[in-house]
Amino acid sequence: MSSSTQTPTGDRIDGRTPDQLREVRITRGWLDQAEGSALIEFGRTRVLCAASFTAGVPRWKQGSGSGWVTAEYAMLPRATNTRSPRESVKGKIGGRTHEISRLIGRSLRAVIDLDALGENTIQLDCDVLQADGGTRTAAITGAYVALADAISWGKQHTSLPAASQVLTDSVSAISVGIVGGRPLLDLEYREDVEAETDMNVVVTGSGSFVEVQGTAEGAPFDRTELGALLDLATGGCADLAKIQRDVLAEQR
Amino acid sequence: MSSSTQTPTGDRIDGRTPDQLREVRITRGWLDQAEGSALIEFGRTRVLCAASFTAGVPRWKQGSGSGWVTAEYAMLPRATNTRSPRESVKGKIGGRTHEISRLIGRSLRAVIDLDALGENTIQLDCDVLQADGGTRTAAITGAYVALADAISWGKQHTSLPAASQVLTDSVSAISVGIVGGRPLLDLEYREDVEAETDMNVVVTGSGSFVEVQGTAEGAPFDRTELGALLDLATGGCADLAKIQRDVLAEQR
Amino acid sequence: MSSSTQTPTGDRIDGRTPDQLREVRITRGWLDQAEGSALIEFGRTRVLCAASFTAGVPRWKQGSGSGWVTAEYAMLPRATNTRSPRESVKGKIGGRTHEISRLIGRSLRAVIDLDALGENTIQLDCDVLQADGGTRTAAITGAYVALADAISWGKQHTSLPAASQVLTDSVSAISVGIVGGRPLLDLEYREDVEAETDMNVVVTGSGSFVEVQGTAEGAPFDRTELGALLDLATGGCADLAKIQRDVLAEQR
Amino acid sequence: MSSSTQTPTGDRIDGRTPDQLREVRITRGWLDQAEGSALIEFGRTRVLCAASFTAGVPRWKQGSGSGWVTAEYAMLPRATNTRSPRESVKGKIGGRTHEISRLIGRSLRAVIDLDALGENTIQLDCDVLQADGGTRTAAITGAYVALADAISWGKQHTSLPAASQVLTDSVSAISVGIVGGRPLLDLEYREDVEAETDMNVVVTGSGSFVEVQGTAEGAPFDRTELGALLDLATGGCADLAKIQRDVLAEQR
Amino acid sequence: MSSSTQTPTGDRIDGRTPDQLREVRITRGWLDQAEGSALIEFGRTRVLCAASFTAGVPRWKQGSGSGWVTAEYAMLPRATNTRSPRESVKGKIGGRTHEISRLIGRSLRAVIDLDALGENTIQLDCDVLQADGGTRTAAITGAYVALADAISWGKQHTSLPAASQVLTDSVSAISVGIVGGRPLLDLEYREDVEAETDMNVVVTGSGSFVEVQGTAEGAPFDRTELGALLDLATGGCADLAKIQRDVLAEQR
Amino acid sequence: MSSSTQTPTGDRIDGRTPDQLREVRITRGWLDQAEGSALIEFGRTRVLCAASFTAGVPRWKQGSGSGWVTAEYAMLPRATNTRSPRESVKGKIGGRTHEISRLIGRSLRAVIDLDALGENTIQLDCDVLQADGGTRTAAITGAYVALADAISWGKQHTSLPAASQVLTDSVSAISVGIVGGRPLLDLEYREDVEAETDMNVVVTGSGSFVEVQGTAEGAPFDRTELGALLDLATGGCADLAKIQRDVLAEQR
Repeated sequence: MSSSTQTPTGDRIDGRTPDQLREVRITRGWLDQAEGSALIEFGRTRVLCAASFTAGVPRWKQGSGSGWVTAEYAMLPRATNTRSPRESVKGKIGGRTHEISRLIGRSLRAVIDLDALGENTIQLDCDVLQADGGTRTAAITGAYVALADAISWGKQHTSLPAASQVLTDSVSAISVGIVGGRPLLDLEYREDVEAETDMNVVVTGSGSFVEVQGTAEGAPFDRTELGALLDLATGGCADLAKIQRDVLAEQR
Repeated sequence: MSSSTQTPTGDRIDGRTPDQLREVRITRGWLDQAEGSALIEFGRTRVLCAASFTAGVPRWKQGSGSGWVTAEYAMLPRATNTRSPRESVKGKIGGRTHEISRLIGRSLRAVIDLDALGENTIQLDCDVLQADGGTRTAAITGAYVALADAISWGKQHTSLPAASQVLTDSVSAISVGIVGGRPLLDLEYREDVEAETDMNVVVTGSGSFVEVQGTAEGAPFDRTELGALLDLATGGCADLAKIQRDVLAEQR
Repeated sequence: MSSSTQTPTGDRIDGRTPDQLREVRITRGWLDQAEGSALIEFGRTRVLCAASFTAGVPRWKQGSGSGWVTAEYAMLPRATNTRSPRESVKGKIGGRTHEISRLIGRSLRAVIDLDALGENTIQLDCDVLQADGGTRTAAITGAYVALADAISWGKQHTSLPAASQVLTDSVSAISVGIVGGRPLLDLEYREDVEAETDMNVVVTGSGSFVEVQGTAEGAPFDRTELGALLDLATGGCADLAKIQRDVLAEQR
Repeated sequence: MSSSTQTPTGDRIDGRTPDQLREVRITRGWLDQAEGSALIEFGRTRVLCAASFTAGVPRWKQGSGSGWVTAEYAMLPRATNTRSPRESVKGKIGGRTHEISRLIGRSLRAVIDLDALGENTIQLDCDVLQADGGTRTAAITGAYVALADAISWGKQHTSLPAASQVLTDSVSAISVGIVGGRPLLDLEYREDVEAETDMNVVVTGSGSFVEVQGTAEGAPFDRTELGALLDLATGGCADLAKIQRDVLAEQR
Repeated sequence: MSSSTQTPTGDRIDGRTPDQLREVRITRGWLDQAEGSALIEFGRTRVLCAASFTAGVPRWKQGSGSGWVTAEYAMLPRATNTRSPRESVKGKIGGRTHEISRLIGRSLRAVIDLDALGENTIQLDCDVLQADGGTRTAAITGAYVALADAISWGKQHTSLPAASQVLTDSVSAISVGIVGGRPLLDLEYREDVEAETDMNVVVTGSGSFVEVQGTAEGAPFDRTELGALLDLATGGCADLAKIQRDVLAEQR
Repeated sequence: MSSSTQTPTGDRIDGRTPDQLREVRITRGWLDQAEGSALIEFGRTRVLCAASFTAGVPRWKQGSGSGWVTAEYAMLPRATNTRSPRESVKGKIGGRTHEISRLIGRSLRAVIDLDALGENTIQLDCDVLQADGGTRTAAITGAYVALADAISWGKQHTSLPAASQVLTDSVSAISVGIVGGRPLLDLEYREDVEAETDMNVVVTGSGSFVEVQGTAEGAPFDRTELGALLDLATGGCADLAKIQRDVLAEQR
């Protein structure tokens, strides 16, 4: 388990400085049976990430020699402040759920060499147990840890060669936004609802962008604001990449 | 948090005696935002129980002066040893899920005076984070704790009178079964799959039955075997009732 | 066709004694095209049971050399006193339907030697044409007759050996309950809604239990009450087993 | 109960003449609880028709002073020669089911004065218990009887005035087809599958057309053939109208 | 592109005579990528018809040596005067959509020699872009043009022999109805809603009937009226057949 | 109707220069019945945009005095090179469809003053008739024209005051991407599948960003590449804004 260590001394709702992450905690191997798993916490946001490694690939990839990584995101009904109906009960998955599941899958595939994975599939499940803003970015960051452990598992328990370079980099994600005219890192829920612009940024361990998704919730934004947000996100993701490295370096 | 304390000295798979519970742990208030919540563990089985208190009742009870308690049970896709598809993705809820949700709802309503609750609804969500046998009985036992806290919350934050006797008793549940010809208490998954007869029993704090559901998985069973199973279950539920009392007696 | 013959002389709503079945009628071969079928009536409750025998098994059993028996239960929209919407129109199957379908399937599999059946499937369809209490128990009792005829059909028309001992016993089911403090056998609808405790019991022809499902609708119940209910059910199922034997003994 | 009486002396599969109906049997009041019901049989085809009378109309008719009549058609899974999956299990209703439900509803509304019905709804449920060709025409013919009884029930038990002329005529339906070059009345299943042209005709008691639905299954048809089919259908429906009158004239 | 040329001089809403088609326009090849396509307009009614030619047939036809032709009909949400919800959003297809899709498929299969098509499938998609009455008949008429082009494509780009006589005839369709007591051809929407009887007729190029679907919306109709409507439809379809021939004769 | 006019002289697949739009054509009022509509073409990509103006707002906005704008995006099954199954037939909407519908809605709400709209709803339907890359950006650009016309309609035909400043700006969108190492504007399908990075940018008429959605399909991208893409997009959207102004300035 690993966590960010800055002491809150800023003037945000919870005392953070504009460029400060919430306390980040990653509990590796939270599940006994999954090939990889991590409970990740960004402050009160808690996401349980499980990685399931299975031999074989979906039909459309069979015979390609190449593997597949996919993700599903969901939220427990009482993760939020007031209860939301279950999508299983409604009988359909909402647009937001779909959108985030796709984002997580794309983000992790960006650091995977699918050919090196061989005809194996890794399914990531990111279930939000408690939501306080930033659930999709916590999910990506935690899913990377679960994914790394599932690949290690595959090297030990399947025909996946131990020398395969399946992971080409690490990946993490953070939200940034303009709140009350100020660019802020890692919005908690109360900040998120007041943001004029909200951006989710996915960054590799080596500092390149995988996804940049910025939305003007209130007034449209200009190039200067965009630049400030990208600076914050790049810094935040560098912190997250270090936390990921530390937690994965621990003996299990 | 509370747990059962016997040392395993028996000859079951995990060293328990036939009438011994697995280690039971209940973490009250695991969620920050729910009106009541408990993470309950029966050994490796982990169920997150949330109770949502809302003013008002479903349409068919409006104007009755009486409240409603209902429950939904679900399992995370990687709670099990191999991943199961999400019911939200399949677009329908399976028979087993339905059956258990209904069982939990009935069991908790058995210890609630709905008139004393007034026109309020308590929705229980029992989500299995990890499954190793006994998920439905853990869910009932944990949901009772979440329910009790949600009622206390209602008395402090709504017009529900502090003096209302909403709870008429406590309720807990345990599985029992005949494995290799021997009646055993609180089956873990490996025992469950080998059981000839499997029974779930829901018992009030005062020792009466709310539900008795026995199924011959292999050979049919007779009255003597049924009697032995009910004895075990009554004992196990008495232990659980004490754990519930202890955890609810703690200051929060 | 066979029916129970006691004259009503008791003091229940319809004049029965506490341990008396309603008039039971079984019309074998009610359908011209099904491999086995029976229209069963418990008083006004009427359930049409059809057994479809097909070569082959579901994918998960292929190559096992063993067969499969499964069941689906449903109710016509106007089987009940007021019309209920069709589950096909609602687009999903309710929890109660699922629960009963599973119960019927388990109950019949308890008296089948699936290995002796070979790689054949028998699908049971139990459709309630009119409901007046006890529909699930009538369904199990009638489905057994349809099942027995479908197995005979299979021995005559397929490669299933005539000497196979596919059925290991017979099976029937009855509801019992505590109404106004009195244990009663075979509740009709008006008794069912007033029952404090309601129990469905599935018993083999040789008198062992396959399922015991007791639910406290009102006050929880104790061991003595449970014993009285099991006595009633055992007697009722013995009567039903005789009716099944008689109807199956008729020439067709 | 009423039935057609011609003796089969023709040369069709079952010995009928080209213009001869199968034996038609209508059992009025087959259900104890529905406001109107009829089990109708055209030979081996058996359809259970139930009419449910309820005060009030769908939202889009509220305040109009006018009533509504609608119908749902369905088939039990083992009504057919080989089992068909349930539409409730598939989670959607097939095109054929939709099409026939709509046809039945339109056909019955053609003989109803919705204004005279007042703001009441009659829901018709036509469930095919056994199918041997002509299920939709049997359904219409039987539904008329159930409808007539439900209207009588409404006059006795609701504020619907006894003098209201709700029914403006009777209605029945029959299938006709060209089989082996010959126009035939009331096709049974084996004839239906060989028909080059298949037509369903709905006719009022006074002999006018409500629906004419002809389909070339094999070769297209010409005006002469169409004329011959309409002649047959008109005759068959006149026979059915008499059977309906007779059965409705019986004391209940 | 081709169009009917009569000048409106009659007394219908839009000045047409009773036996006059609306202006009919067929734009062949409206889509760049489909194997066959046509945008067909009957006055303001506009339907985009696409034919997709694919090698292979559905599972139930595999190995038969014979092909398959099927159709799907749908309407854009704002094709109509007021917006209708999307069936994809509602999660189910309505009865009307199903019914028309089936009609289109049957109508086109009536002029196809499926054996000559070989094991190929042609899927027709008829999407109503704007609706002003007669959408199903426009769809059939336009789908024939798309179908003919898809077959030509198949002869040029697949192993389908150039000499195969896949099309046995042409097919078109038109609506007719009795409005204000007068039989009229090709009803536009305002006429359609006032029609006492509404009939859709599908006719081959050689003048035989494929489908005749007449419905009494108001008063039932008699043989004389039926005859007048069939005369009108036969004439209208002859005009449509000529337009189809002309447009297919153009060089592409 | 309006179109971009640069002559292709560059070296892209279709001869365009890197910063050149495809030919853009907007046909205003393509539908006769919608309050606003536009058929927009970006080269071979064709999207039909309809705006439906209705009085009233969804329940959650009732009484707010404020209006609502929402959008649905869909694709005809044969819009693409090979046919895709209909979402209505599959019974559920895919993640991509959901994601784009939400993007269109957000983009248009960014230039609407919902308070000035009053309690009215404008529903945008964007249906892709033919797809060749850039369908979502064409949809946004065309939907703005339909929206503007629907607002004009509302001012003429409803109580919406003619002086209301409902639109605060115009909005358009374009895709950009890095293909073969080069930043390109307005990718057609063949370019899109080869892009290493793909970005959709939504820009107001005054040049501010509403949405920036960049995805690394191949290698992650850096700040410099991001800058180049944003420059291209800003230029392309300025061209589109002019085309929108021109087409809306035409007399209707």
